[in-house]
Amino acid sequence: MVNVLITGAAGMVGGKLADRLIQDGAVSDKPIEALTLADIVAPPARQAAGIDISTHAADLADPGVADRLIAGRPQVIFHVAAVTSGEAEADFDKGYRVNLDGMRMLFEAIRRVGHPYCPRLVWTSSIAVFGAPFPEAIPDDFFETPLTSYGTQKAIGELLLADYTRRGVFDGIGIRLPTIVVRPGEPNRAASGFFSGIIREPLVGKEAILPVPDSIRHWHATPRSAVNFLVHAAGLDGATVGARRNITMPGVSVTVAEQIAALRKVAGDRVAERIVRKPDQTIMRIVEGWPRNFAPERAISLGFRAESDFEEIIRIHIEDELGGTWVK
Amino acid sequence: MVNVLITGAAGMVGGKLADRLIQDGAVSDKPIEALTLADIVAPPARQAAGIDISTHAADLADPGVADRLIAGRPQVIFHVAAVTSGEAEADFDKGYRVNLDGMRMLFEAIRRVGHPYCPRLVWTSSIAVFGAPFPEAIPDDFFETPLTSYGTQKAIGELLLADYTRRGVFDGIGIRLPTIVVRPGEPNRAASGFFSGIIREPLVGKEAILPVPDSIRHWHATPRSAVNFLVHAAGLDGATVGARRNITMPGVSVTVAEQIAALRKVAGDRVAERIVRKPDQTIMRIVEGWPRNFAPERAISLGFRAESDFEEIIRIHIEDELGGTWVK
Repeated sequence: MVNVLITGAAGMVGGKLADRLIQDGAVSDKPIEALTLADIVAPPARQAAGIDISTHAADLADPGVADRLIAGRPQVIFHVAAVTSGEAEADFDKGYRVNLDGMRMLFEAIRRVGHPYCPRLVWTSSIAVFGAPFPEAIPDDFFETPLTSYGTQKAIGELLLADYTRRGVFDGIGIRLPTIVVRPGEPNRAASGFFSGIIREPLVGKEAILPVPDSIRHWHATPRSAVNFLVHAAGLDGATVGARRNITMPGVSVTVAEQIAALRKVAGDRVAERIVRKPDQTIMRIVEGWPRNFAPERAISLGFRAESDFEEIIRIHIEDELGGTWVK
Repeated sequence: MVNVLITGAAGMVGGKLADRLIQDGAVSDKPIEALTLADIVAPPARQAAGIDISTHAADLADPGVADRLIAGRPQVIFHVAAVTSGEAEADFDKGYRVNLDGMRMLFEAIRRVGHPYCPRLVWTSSIAVFGAPFPEAIPDDFFETPLTSYGTQKAIGELLLADYTRRGVFDGIGIRLPTIVVRPGEPNRAASGFFSGIIREPLVGKEAILPVPDSIRHWHATPRSAVNFLVHAAGLDGATVGARRNITMPGVSVTVAEQIAALRKVAGDRVAERIVRKPDQTIMRIVEGWPRNFAPERAISLGFRAESDFEEIIRIHIEDELGGTWVK
């Protein structure tokens, strides 16, 4: 029986992870006894037979909060809470407070408990730790020179996770998520939002704006894969992972043109024609600094799997979010 | 006229830097008007005609200290203060407090002043940001996977320095120092201490213990070079340096056998025979994780220079620390 904590459980990935764990009733083949869901706003209440689910609305960066969240000594912690890329760039203080100080508060609370408590801690890093210029496909040992405050905070998190793991405070795994598409819900102001928007909006009969050229290549995986990565990481053998605890996840590298071609193939010409080209210099400049492709050999050898092409990414969105249908 | 702040001014490198600046009376060809020397213990008092020198004993990680140190709005800040490798490993809290929190306190104090204040900030990183396994010579774009808390703190510092520079808070340059030999003074408990000890002690007629095999290769530069690096960095054009603000300094890559051969050549057989081999498994294990050689192309192209061989390193020690003579 294990006790599990998810931070960031009110977010898209954290929420889907909570649903998945409740559905499985187990993590790494161990039945879940208790599930603590925390976020800055209260995560939706959930019910599950046999699992004691509690929800907390609290700021990890506030003194004492992390200690309360680990009061039940969770053996598995998913630290997903973060301020997004756009917000961390717009609000310097908030980004460092949540993405760096909040993380340290959690790590220090675990350290205060001390030996023999040593939970598995799975944390979401990001491909934003890398900064242009890039090779054709970024290898696992590429250096980290982030070009945003968000990427800086994630790169710092990777270093802390590795050092606390080496010290035996917890057994950490950091996973560098691809850009997650297709994000459900309303369009947001994130610079990467259009990668989801040009698929999500046309499928419900709405126009979507494409602010960059068709030739832009990027690295994608579904929300379903993001949850799979987190769950798979929870069960990894630390000794097999070794000292290098932060791992680039697999994904699908496609151009925007290939995204649109896949949408056309899966959903038809009329859907694809709902994409409206409207170049935006600001977004183009941001996106040009982003990674395009990876060679995630370590992740593959450790058993992580993503989608094999962009059509599969679209089909999973239709299946998971649209009940199998769309507006033709 | 410039106003200069040195943190860590009671330490070996910070102290020599203070002496050098006073001797030059200028930095980057600009006369020094005021020099603030700070450390956790009071730096020795110094006098110089025409320079207003003040000393401060204070902990940068304490609230308000950094604000007071930059009250004179120094245009050039040398942030040299740090807990050493051995101490940061032995005392987890102290290492993070000084090497991470103290640095952030300084950076945040500068940010609070705000535009148009934007000093040149030169900071001492370390080759400890790199972790084994290594290529034959570590290139400038090698990834950072430190294997100590000290290396972790320095790698985090590099990320922060780059992000604050990108944000225009200051104009930062991080320099990754080689192991500094020959360190003057008493033997210390640092695992790297023997690299200096096997030169320094025999030259004053004392025995020195060599705890590792002759075949160990490492990366060295003199205290004089360390000061040269700092002074040169203060005058660099930020636009020429670009976004990648942390630079591996040049050095001399030699084996212990080559160190001893150089000592024999410079100072004679009797001096070299004062080295006593006494293998120490703990030190050997630590040293095996350390970098051995670099290809510091960026630093060379930016005009940084170190010694050209280990004989020169020994001669500089004899000149700078022993008044040109030694115990034959």
